Amino acid sequence: MNEHAVFLSGDNFFDTPNYHISSVYGDYLRRPSKYMLDYTFLEHYHNFSEMVFITEGNTIQTINGIDYPVQSGDLFLIEGNTTHCFHPGTKFCLFNLLFDKMTLPLPWQELQYLPGYTMFFETEPRVRKPDTFRNHLRLNEYDSVQLAEKLVQLANFIRFKGNPYSRIEGLQLLLEIITDISKRYERHFENTDSPFPKINNAIVLMKKKFHRVITLEELASVAGLSERSFTRQFKIITQDTPIGYLMKIRLEHAKDYLKNTSLSISEIAFKCGFADSNYFTKFFKTQCKVSPRQWRKNSRG
Amino acid sequence: MNEHAVFLSGDNFFDTPNYHISSVYGDYLRRPSKYMLDYTFLEHYHNFSEMVFITEGNTIQTINGIDYPVQSGDLFLIEGNTTHCFHPGTKFCLFNLLFDKMTLPLPWQELQYLPGYTMFFETEPRVRKPDTFRNHLRLNEYDSVQLAEKLVQLANFIRFKGNPYSRIEGLQLLLEIITDISKRYERHFENTDSPFPKINNAIVLMKKKFHRVITLEELASVAGLSERSFTRQFKIITQDTPIGYLMKIRLEHAKDYLKNTSLSISEIAFKCGFADSNYFTKFFKTQCKVSPRQWRKNSRG
Repeated sequence: MNEHAVFLSGDNFFDTPNYHISSVYGDYLRRPSKYMLDYTFLEHYHNFSEMVFITEGNTIQTINGIDYPVQSGDLFLIEGNTTHCFHPGTKFCLFNLLFDKMTLPLPWQELQYLPGYTMFFETEPRVRKPDTFRNHLRLNEYDSVQLAEKLVQLANFIRFKGNPYSRIEGLQLLLEIITDISKRYERHFENTDSPFPKINNAIVLMKKKFHRVITLEELASVAGLSERSFTRQFKIITQDTPIGYLMKIRLEHAKDYLKNTSLSISEIAFKCGFADSNYFTKFFKTQCKVSPRQWRKNSRG
Repeated sequence: MNEHAVFLSGDNFFDTPNYHISSVYGDYLRRPSKYMLDYTFLEHYHNFSEMVFITEGNTIQTINGIDYPVQSGDLFLIEGNTTHCFHPGTKFCLFNLLFDKMTLPLPWQELQYLPGYTMFFETEPRVRKPDTFRNHLRLNEYDSVQLAEKLVQLANFIRFKGNPYSRIEGLQLLLEIITDISKRYERHFENTDSPFPKINNAIVLMKKKFHRVITLEELASVAGLSERSFTRQFKIITQDTPIGYLMKIRLEHAKDYLKNTSLSISEIAFKCGFADSNYFTKFFKTQCKVSPRQWRKNSRG
């Protein structure tokens, strides 16, 4: 992460506790930003998700230091704690949908069962690279208008969020928008020979069963591919090996346990699917440059 | 509770784990029940909520041993662990919407902010008596058709609940139905001089702040009534005094803590707003015939 990027907390966007949704329209086509400090054009990050939907024009979005040319119809998610900004001087209109999964009472667990949800909202943002960005969603004019209408309606509900019915209706509509996009994204791959949905199935399995031994055979099987073909396609999609990707998932969970529990190192190693805790400590050091114990200390400092 | 009533577990109605919704239509007008053991006509109870919506004919529903004459358009909730049945031989059609708040991932906390929700789904079922049953909802023909359509659509989503999109859409629709009814129920009291919404505000406050001292002044104030008038109206609606009702809420929470935690009696007394634990034990005994300690033992036996 760029160490000069600005962290914007939820307070900058959400003014109601436990109702962290924001739907904003920005016109940088007819009304270019006059503010030197418009965060749209300054590298920033926040701890909630942001959906970007370009409705007109074209621009370049920098995500984690990498430039992605985007144009009208483009729709993609920027996960929390990811630096991003648009190139200043570019002309475009966009909707930004900001939402905090940690605090919003929506059936996130249930959404995990939608392949389109895990693909669009979880996997694609993590495996995104300029040459795999063709896996993002580009809406046609009809679908764009439909989505824009819902985003405007959502902005209205949020505007009146002092009214408890508007709050509930806003939550309902957000869930509807997320489900629509998931469905739309699944259709995007129908009748294509893209391996992305297949590889996503394997990634979903990894995320669900990271705490136990997972074999290449199992992964290839949920992907519906031979082991050889699976390994090759996995690499193309994720730029990583299956075991490398799985280890990163385990590492993330381990960090989470280190930070938020007082479990011992060997308990954490066990809970995260590491065969033994010596191996865990060694692996952790090669990845994070410090021991798990030291990392725990720093994370609480 | 009638000790001969049959307990029906969720397994009788919901065949999918963590998806406890069921929407059923029953025609006992043109097709009277042929089964001696149709539970519709036998006293039974279950641990989830049931919404009853009579669409044609009229009948008598027995709830907790009390008879309520009901007719087409009538809509009301039967809470979990409440015995109920219809009088055999009566001719009517109905929709039953069964849902388990404990397991469904919907924003229940957020719904607490809708006065219509707490009134219809929580307070009315608890204060219901034949002479206050006029507070139930009776839909006109237009609203009845609207609701029936949504209940049929919900039944379809549930039918295909193997499909993850149907599951999500079923959850969305259930939330929409609950919100619609809440809104409709609030409108039901607009331009009436019914004290029910006012008394409900006080009950919501009791349920939220039961763990601390609540004064009559506070309660009367959220109800927008003088203390004298509040006490009188509270009695008419609930057949109980404000302090009596509050103590029952405290007692319910205490039982919950006794059953599900290992907190000490004095900790529980404190958490439930009892001034001291001797008084708690004494009060518990007069209400439950056994000491808290004995009750805890029995509940785990």
